[in-house]
Amino acid sequence: MPALAPSMIAADYGRLEAQAREALDAGADWLHMDVMDGHFVPNLTIGPGIIEALHPVAEEYDAPVDVHLMIENPERYIDAFADAGADVITVHAETCSHLHRVVQQIQEAGCRAGVALNPATPLGQLEAILPMVDLVLVMSVNPGFSGQAFIPQSTTKIQRLRRQLNALGSKARLEVDGGVKPGNALQLVQAGADVLVAGSAVFGGDGSVEENIEAFRSALTLKV
Amino acid sequence: MPALAPSMIAADYGRLEAQAREALDAGADWLHMDVMDGHFVPNLTIGPGIIEALHPVAEEYDAPVDVHLMIENPERYIDAFADAGADVITVHAETCSHLHRVVQQIQEAGCRAGVALNPATPLGQLEAILPMVDLVLVMSVNPGFSGQAFIPQSTTKIQRLRRQLNALGSKARLEVDGGVKPGNALQLVQAGADVLVAGSAVFGGDGSVEENIEAFRSALTLKV
Amino acid sequence: MPALAPSMIAADYGRLEAQAREALDAGADWLHMDVMDGHFVPNLTIGPGIIEALHPVAEEYDAPVDVHLMIENPERYIDAFADAGADVITVHAETCSHLHRVVQQIQEAGCRAGVALNPATPLGQLEAILPMVDLVLVMSVNPGFSGQAFIPQSTTKIQRLRRQLNALGSKARLEVDGGVKPGNALQLVQAGADVLVAGSAVFGGDGSVEENIEAFRSALTLKV
Amino acid sequence: MPALAPSMIAADYGRLEAQAREALDAGADWLHMDVMDGHFVPNLTIGPGIIEALHPVAEEYDAPVDVHLMIENPERYIDAFADAGADVITVHAETCSHLHRVVQQIQEAGCRAGVALNPATPLGQLEAILPMVDLVLVMSVNPGFSGQAFIPQSTTKIQRLRRQLNALGSKARLEVDGGVKPGNALQLVQAGADVLVAGSAVFGGDGSVEENIEAFRSALTLKV
Amino acid sequence: MPALAPSMIAADYGRLEAQAREALDAGADWLHMDVMDGHFVPNLTIGPGIIEALHPVAEEYDAPVDVHLMIENPERYIDAFADAGADVITVHAETCSHLHRVVQQIQEAGCRAGVALNPATPLGQLEAILPMVDLVLVMSVNPGFSGQAFIPQSTTKIQRLRRQLNALGSKARLEVDGGVKPGNALQLVQAGADVLVAGSAVFGGDGSVEENIEAFRSALTLKV
Amino acid sequence: MPALAPSMIAADYGRLEAQAREALDAGADWLHMDVMDGHFVPNLTIGPGIIEALHPVAEEYDAPVDVHLMIENPERYIDAFADAGADVITVHAETCSHLHRVVQQIQEAGCRAGVALNPATPLGQLEAILPMVDLVLVMSVNPGFSGQAFIPQSTTKIQRLRRQLNALGSKARLEVDGGVKPGNALQLVQAGADVLVAGSAVFGGDGSVEENIEAFRSALTLKV
Repeated sequence: MPALAPSMIAADYGRLEAQAREALDAGADWLHMDVMDGHFVPNLTIGPGIIEALHPVAEEYDAPVDVHLMIENPERYIDAFADAGADVITVHAETCSHLHRVVQQIQEAGCRAGVALNPATPLGQLEAILPMVDLVLVMSVNPGFSGQAFIPQSTTKIQRLRRQLNALGSKARLEVDGGVKPGNALQLVQAGADVLVAGSAVFGGDGSVEENIEAFRSALTLKV
Repeated sequence: MPALAPSMIAADYGRLEAQAREALDAGADWLHMDVMDGHFVPNLTIGPGIIEALHPVAEEYDAPVDVHLMIENPERYIDAFADAGADVITVHAETCSHLHRVVQQIQEAGCRAGVALNPATPLGQLEAILPMVDLVLVMSVNPGFSGQAFIPQSTTKIQRLRRQLNALGSKARLEVDGGVKPGNALQLVQAGADVLVAGSAVFGGDGSVEENIEAFRSALTLKV
Repeated sequence: MPALAPSMIAADYGRLEAQAREALDAGADWLHMDVMDGHFVPNLTIGPGIIEALHPVAEEYDAPVDVHLMIENPERYIDAFADAGADVITVHAETCSHLHRVVQQIQEAGCRAGVALNPATPLGQLEAILPMVDLVLVMSVNPGFSGQAFIPQSTTKIQRLRRQLNALGSKARLEVDGGVKPGNALQLVQAGADVLVAGSAVFGGDGSVEENIEAFRSALTLKV
Repeated sequence: MPALAPSMIAADYGRLEAQAREALDAGADWLHMDVMDGHFVPNLTIGPGIIEALHPVAEEYDAPVDVHLMIENPERYIDAFADAGADVITVHAETCSHLHRVVQQIQEAGCRAGVALNPATPLGQLEAILPMVDLVLVMSVNPGFSGQAFIPQSTTKIQRLRRQLNALGSKARLEVDGGVKPGNALQLVQAGADVLVAGSAVFGGDGSVEENIEAFRSALTLKV
Repeated sequence: MPALAPSMIAADYGRLEAQAREALDAGADWLHMDVMDGHFVPNLTIGPGIIEALHPVAEEYDAPVDVHLMIENPERYIDAFADAGADVITVHAETCSHLHRVVQQIQEAGCRAGVALNPATPLGQLEAILPMVDLVLVMSVNPGFSGQAFIPQSTTKIQRLRRQLNALGSKARLEVDGGVKPGNALQLVQAGADVLVAGSAVFGGDGSVEENIEAFRSALTLKV
Repeated sequence: MPALAPSMIAADYGRLEAQAREALDAGADWLHMDVMDGHFVPNLTIGPGIIEALHPVAEEYDAPVDVHLMIENPERYIDAFADAGADVITVHAETCSHLHRVVQQIQEAGCRAGVALNPATPLGQLEAILPMVDLVLVMSVNPGFSGQAFIPQSTTKIQRLRRQLNALGSKARLEVDGGVKPGNALQLVQAGADVLVAGSAVFGGDGSVEENIEAFRSALTLKV
């Protein structure tokens, strides 16, 4: 069964703890945190302080805190996010000249290490690091904002990546983020994703958080 | 009577709206928002999304939303923060080669424009812009983290700046941020400050937010 | 029949409109504009103002204005060049961490989107973006100056790229820029190029612009 | 008699040589060239190639070519602009950590060295370099675009700078750029400016270049 | 027979000439110089001055001076290192948007041109430049410090690169740097390396420089 | 009696320990280390490793190790240089937006904190930090290379700074670096300098290190 990781970027920032509880009560598996620095992406969001505030809630539900660093020079903040309670820390391949060192740094800080790829970044960029990573995040929109439409070519990327991970015997998780909705969730899982990030599809729209998560569950459960 | 501006950076990030209400109910005048990008300062905090979430609360209490941008290239984000509901937007003199243009941009976006100075930045840096600004923020700690100790030389800086503003006939507010507590609040007001930012002294310690704000009020009311 | 795109960087800057007319009168198909910022490449050339001045001439002749951005952070200037009258806007893969977003931005601005590759940049960099682009520009010299010698390995790159575009069923144009002359034009077209940029071979040397363009035409017409 | 320096940034880029001749025929004293790199200022304009193209015309009229570098790291391009025919090269104080070295480099390249100040940059920044410079450029608008309104505080800055130059016995020229028109030209000269840059007031509006320059001349001649 | 290139970064900086002689007397083939700028890597080491001081010694022994530039914008320092006496200059693929131009620049300065790859950088990055280079440096640790442990995946990278070089008929040297010791030297040579860089294994430990180099020689001689 | 601080940048890099001993034996008071990163200044020199190698020698002679950081973002390397044995660490005002924090960081690392000013940087930049610093370094050449000519205006800067330090009751040392020779040493001391850095005047020329230092001593002793 794939993990559903609601992205707190789409929640009500005025009551993040309550929103995290709603999502976890409704069956969310991970809490996804979108950290943006206004340099790597054209938006600023949250930092270690907010991870630290939500970490105890996640721990209560035994849900991993999944931190996606859309920041330049992520090596400067790995320790701060690990200390704040991150379980997974994902950096962008596009930001790391020394990607091997950063992956090592994340793992030495006691976290699982993820690497994210922008939509136009070829899978080949990961060739030399794939055996080491604990997670690969395929961006299916351009990072920076919640609520964008899924880029269709992402499905092929997921399929090819899944084959590469299988060929390596890797147990790394394959996460997808961007435009994920109940309507395409099954297709993404069938393509090979096993962690689905969803922001506005969980915290937005007319349904409650509970109904939204239920929609994901039923889309996935019936057919997987 | 000087304005007290609790800094939300020191509040509980899991329930920011509730914390803002506590502070405003207890008599806080402004809501202060510390935006950090991990580049200008070694910390990442919040972005326009959180300002947008707290803006309606501030509006309810008729409290200005006071946004302190500790970020590089602030000109790229002025509009986003103005749209999110900022009333005052303060940029650092150290980050703006084109400070006049940024001040103009803030004012054209319908906000009051502030300029902040780091502890080691001389007042003379403001000479050519002082007549235009709506607020000057004297940093009495190095920006980046809540909870640091007040730098004593700041008092002289405030006194000198107050004299300069008076000489210009300026109505700009003089704000001080860093290590402000009930114990030094009166001295800062007497030196010329009229907006006091307080983070851990409002949201931290053993007292309630109400008690903490009351401590400021009594420190100031009795003697001003 | 391939398009010939004279590069205005090699024209007489004192009378650009007249030079553009000479080239278009002689049968040039596109006007190529080399924008350099002194950061991505070690030269500064022209900006949107010059595109704006030449755009009406190009329009008169129904010739596309082909803008090659050799600049960092091209996303900041897409709108300015689109507004100035660009028909094609080409950015360098080496300058765009968010290449998918920039390509989208160019297309949303109503222009055709090109991606350029430096001589040492492998074709594999384009893998994930190739289906979206309207043009690929293979640099056959290092960008920065007019008048350099053609790098022979470029021919193989063009051949391989042509095969990739054909395999995708892509209608994207394949442009080559750098050391293009009547003597190698046919070989480049046979390798798969269908837009030839020529600077000093059009505006320099002993021949008139008309004679120079005629030399290209005869090199190509006889044998294609 | 102050020098009038038409800024070619406001001329018709399609026929720069002709426009330069019109201005010089009408009595313009200097040719002013606004070089922008899209990094220091949010616009890209021209580079050494255009200076090189107009230099012979300026020489014919014995008019100095006055190059204003609104670029980061200007030290990398001093030689290119000197070789292209610049007589005066002006760099921004805001872009030069090593301002003394850059001024020296300009002078060793055989040019006169100018230093420009943005509207919010205090005069005090020049204290240690003033004795060495050949020109100071007071920006009376924020650099980046032609056609902006004059910032009134600039007049005081000019007056104070004139007094400082006189006190030093300096023969440096005092140039003003931004919103300069026949209507304020006299006041600027009386404040102490002796080189007036004018862009849209020379090349724009309803009058011919000749009429526009005549308007400056008559504004100045009658009363100086 | 592969070349052994002791890295002077691990020598006693107080008596570099003597240490270089010890190594060369003991049979070292090349002198390897690790230049770090504190920007590309988190350490600062040496510059052209130290290369210049050791160059005469190397020349005496007919040993190439092998300079590994772990610096940003290496194009600014190629000439300085060539003038200081470098025979080989190696730049990092991760630092060069214009890698072809830099390789050309090194060769035009009269040196052999190397390209280095960080552990996570895929070999595919070199596809378009491989035919031109004189040396490829496979980093088997993350650059920045002496004394780290060899990354095992490097062996496969060396094998694949050797096959690519052979397929091209290239005579480029294949150098490996990081955690190289007598214990793994033979395996690296068998994988295809023909220049071995060793720092702490030559200048550190309990043995003398002579003994340490002898250990390499015996590890290699017996079996190659 | 002022301190003489030979700059190791001008010594023979192949035998730094021996050169340090020669200077200290001849009566040098401090060892001055010029750290350059190729970014703040156009040269690369030495890093913490060389300080570490020379520190024991300096300690033997009870001579302070005086480290002058001509590097960007010096805050990243303060600890490395303190650990390597620096007694004084001097940063450039031009490189520190957060100068107060860096000065504090140096002092908390157990070192004396210096601030350096480039020739064109006005003294006013130090106004707010002067009470905290342990040393001010007036650059009397543009930093980057040994062997340049003294800039005459530096003398006035030293005089004014000495008056400011006296007015504050500060015990900070006033160091001068650049073109210092026996011929101007006395004048600099009379102007207020009490630490003289000399590079080529100590390690260059026809005299021995001993004779060169003796020339300084006699220039100073007779008349001070």
